[in-house]
Amino acid sequence: MAVDFDLLVIGAGPGGYVAAIRAAQLGMKTAIVEREALGGICLNWGCIPAKALLKSGEVYEQLGHLGDYGLSVEGRAFDFDKVVQRSRKVAAQLASGVGYLMKKNKIEVIEGAAVLQKGEGAPRAVITLKAGGQRTVQARSVILATGARARTIPAAGLEPDGDRIWTYREAIVPKACPKSLLVVGSGAIGVEFASFYRALGAEVTVIEALPRILPVEDEEVSAAARKAFEKRGLKFRVGADVKKLAKSKTGVTVDLDVGGKAETLEAEVAIVAVGISGNVEDLGLEALGVKIDRGHVTIDAHGATNVAGLYAIGDVAGPPWLAHKASHEGVHCVEHIAGLAPANLKSPIPGCTYSTPQVASVGLTEAQAKEQGLEVKVGRFPFKVNGKAIAAGETEGFVKTVFDGRTGALVGAHMLGAEVTEMIQGFVLAITLEATEAELQGAVFAHPTMSEAMHEASLDAYGRVLHL
Amino acid sequence: MAVDFDLLVIGAGPGGYVAAIRAAQLGMKTAIVEREALGGICLNWGCIPAKALLKSGEVYEQLGHLGDYGLSVEGRAFDFDKVVQRSRKVAAQLASGVGYLMKKNKIEVIEGAAVLQKGEGAPRAVITLKAGGQRTVQARSVILATGARARTIPAAGLEPDGDRIWTYREAIVPKACPKSLLVVGSGAIGVEFASFYRALGAEVTVIEALPRILPVEDEEVSAAARKAFEKRGLKFRVGADVKKLAKSKTGVTVDLDVGGKAETLEAEVAIVAVGISGNVEDLGLEALGVKIDRGHVTIDAHGATNVAGLYAIGDVAGPPWLAHKASHEGVHCVEHIAGLAPANLKSPIPGCTYSTPQVASVGLTEAQAKEQGLEVKVGRFPFKVNGKAIAAGETEGFVKTVFDGRTGALVGAHMLGAEVTEMIQGFVLAITLEATEAELQGAVFAHPTMSEAMHEASLDAYGRVLHL
Repeated sequence: MAVDFDLLVIGAGPGGYVAAIRAAQLGMKTAIVEREALGGICLNWGCIPAKALLKSGEVYEQLGHLGDYGLSVEGRAFDFDKVVQRSRKVAAQLASGVGYLMKKNKIEVIEGAAVLQKGEGAPRAVITLKAGGQRTVQARSVILATGARARTIPAAGLEPDGDRIWTYREAIVPKACPKSLLVVGSGAIGVEFASFYRALGAEVTVIEALPRILPVEDEEVSAAARKAFEKRGLKFRVGADVKKLAKSKTGVTVDLDVGGKAETLEAEVAIVAVGISGNVEDLGLEALGVKIDRGHVTIDAHGATNVAGLYAIGDVAGPPWLAHKASHEGVHCVEHIAGLAPANLKSPIPGCTYSTPQVASVGLTEAQAKEQGLEVKVGRFPFKVNGKAIAAGETEGFVKTVFDGRTGALVGAHMLGAEVTEMIQGFVLAITLEATEAELQGAVFAHPTMSEAMHEASLDAYGRVLHL
Repeated sequence: MAVDFDLLVIGAGPGGYVAAIRAAQLGMKTAIVEREALGGICLNWGCIPAKALLKSGEVYEQLGHLGDYGLSVEGRAFDFDKVVQRSRKVAAQLASGVGYLMKKNKIEVIEGAAVLQKGEGAPRAVITLKAGGQRTVQARSVILATGARARTIPAAGLEPDGDRIWTYREAIVPKACPKSLLVVGSGAIGVEFASFYRALGAEVTVIEALPRILPVEDEEVSAAARKAFEKRGLKFRVGADVKKLAKSKTGVTVDLDVGGKAETLEAEVAIVAVGISGNVEDLGLEALGVKIDRGHVTIDAHGATNVAGLYAIGDVAGPPWLAHKASHEGVHCVEHIAGLAPANLKSPIPGCTYSTPQVASVGLTEAQAKEQGLEVKVGRFPFKVNGKAIAAGETEGFVKTVFDGRTGALVGAHMLGAEVTEMIQGFVLAITLEATEAELQGAVFAHPTMSEAMHEASLDAYGRVLHL
């Protein structure tokens, strides 16, 4: 059988479509298979429409305290359908943009579901086409970028039903704004939905099994974020195991075990956001003998699986489950296939939560740095004494830096506050470029900006903070 | 005569008070003289209160297009006094913070006006105290941080009078919002005031003698910023020489020569923002023989003047006239005095304009890079195809990168858009850390953020842009 393509990418989320574009740039004849929608979860039901909803929520919430700025309005209102429709329009615009990029880069888009089987060199894909019929594709290399889906809590006795019990998939296209809401899981997705619905006035309680919210973040960020969220009226139950999820006449009830004490919460709707599972099923991976570990395909430092010619990137290849990690892996993997010897796959990966206030971080938490035996130096600077933050009325939060005292290298940075998701890239670059404390301290941060707190937190770690 | 202090700082703006804090950290017995207000122009009548005004303006302007977000209000209004009072409160809070920092660091604050004369080693300061009387102070080293003041256009026949013809000093504490406004000068200060008063509904025309607005910015930024401002209803006259400024019955008239054509503009108020002059007068500098060039004290690479023991930093020592340049020089100068051999004084200095949209830049413009004979590679990425920008409804603007093609070094970066003043620090760090194109391209920028446009602009310079 002849080879049809240099590269076949399975899954057109950010990891997959970016890999395809990079391959096309490098002159590879490339095809991409997608069973649902170009852009994947991220563009269609995840990051992008969520940020559109959150923006409407943020602006609406700000309308409640305009007096802070010497402004006033006579009434504020949201049109829930319009808020959601705007978010759908944004998602549609970006997804159609991916279609344009595929065309422009001469990447063939095959709409359908692929199953892999033993091929010549790389596995062969047998694609059940959306339009009907089958098509068999043999490529020199295959990249699996099939993403992931929401995990559920089968032990709790009830699966998401799209009516009263939602996953992100229902929460992103709600028919109405629930008056009360339980969010199970306090990771980025849970906290973002909690933040959005709270902004529009819902009574929201977030349930977390671990002892603190945003459990992957630095402990100080978790604690300060919780306080800031509580000021906005969000409620939390931490160290709380969900024992039972049940429908009631008017909504849902959740039975909790909170440190040995039983508790029952009620609300109109519950959102289950307890993590995701890689989409490893129905792809023929078992028959090919692809190594899979806890729901994710096992890869080496370049994205290669244990099967010749088969690679995996993004969510299906393991955490962190972030679009930019997927696209970074996609570019890396394609450059490796092309023989370009790309730099280390394991670049520092920032994480962002687009709540009010926002959370952003990169590298090691203080606890992780200590576990690794580093001689940890920590710096902190609060926005409440930052000139720009005061001028903008955005004084919630702080910046925390973690340095390795032996080398002076920045190893972690953690931020809570307005716009920190746009600021974290400076710390990402600093860690990527292996900046030392002296270099960070000697750099000039524009005044007045909130980013000056990044500078001050770097100075503070070495007892040189200026404005504290 | 005995030595009273290790260091005397003259002027308590950001450069001066930061220098004093750094000196105290290094164990120097330090005093600071201020003739007017702790915090200087920046905290009291400049950057900080301006940002407070601008924030009120931005939020008010957003109230005019809430439908974009699915939101509505019945009416919008601003209480001009409250807007200004809020800005004064912010300024007062920060200025009082400087007082706290001086106390905490055991820096003696001397309220008065200093005149220098020949001393023992360093010049001696004779201070006419605000409280009455004189005090003579001999320090081992003296740092001049006396700042600058607004330049005027005496040739045009009328000096600012605080009534109809303002400088920043009146524009920052206006008694009422003028219905129409002429702004002479389109640098950062002129453009910020224009942006603020326009946001509140004033008819604003900005007059610029040079052929384009924001003349220190990259040409593409100037052009795109003008277009974006014009969409908001701002008007511009470029290549326009002010021949005469006169009061009329109802306001002011400005006679212009626009490319040989006479034109007269009228408005209620004019703001003159045509640059600044260093405060070099009445300090005894001439008698000491301090070298002064075009209104600024001449310094070497460590801030030293030609007079032993006398240093100068910030605005009085020359452009760029930016608070963060002043405080950077202050820290550097003190570390040099302390014998610490600090890194190069000439770190890349970002520049920010807090208009709507914002402007931020660092390093060389494309034209400057070409003038220097670099093999220039330029990358661009517009926010209108950036996912976060679309989701937030903030699609105006773009990112432009300038690389030296021979070395791959980033030599300049230029941004127009929402929040770019908080984003520029990443490029500052990249240039400071001498990042190459490969390092910037390999770094992972969080998705979805506007900062991804920084990544894409770096990829674009090398023909690798992903989302265009």
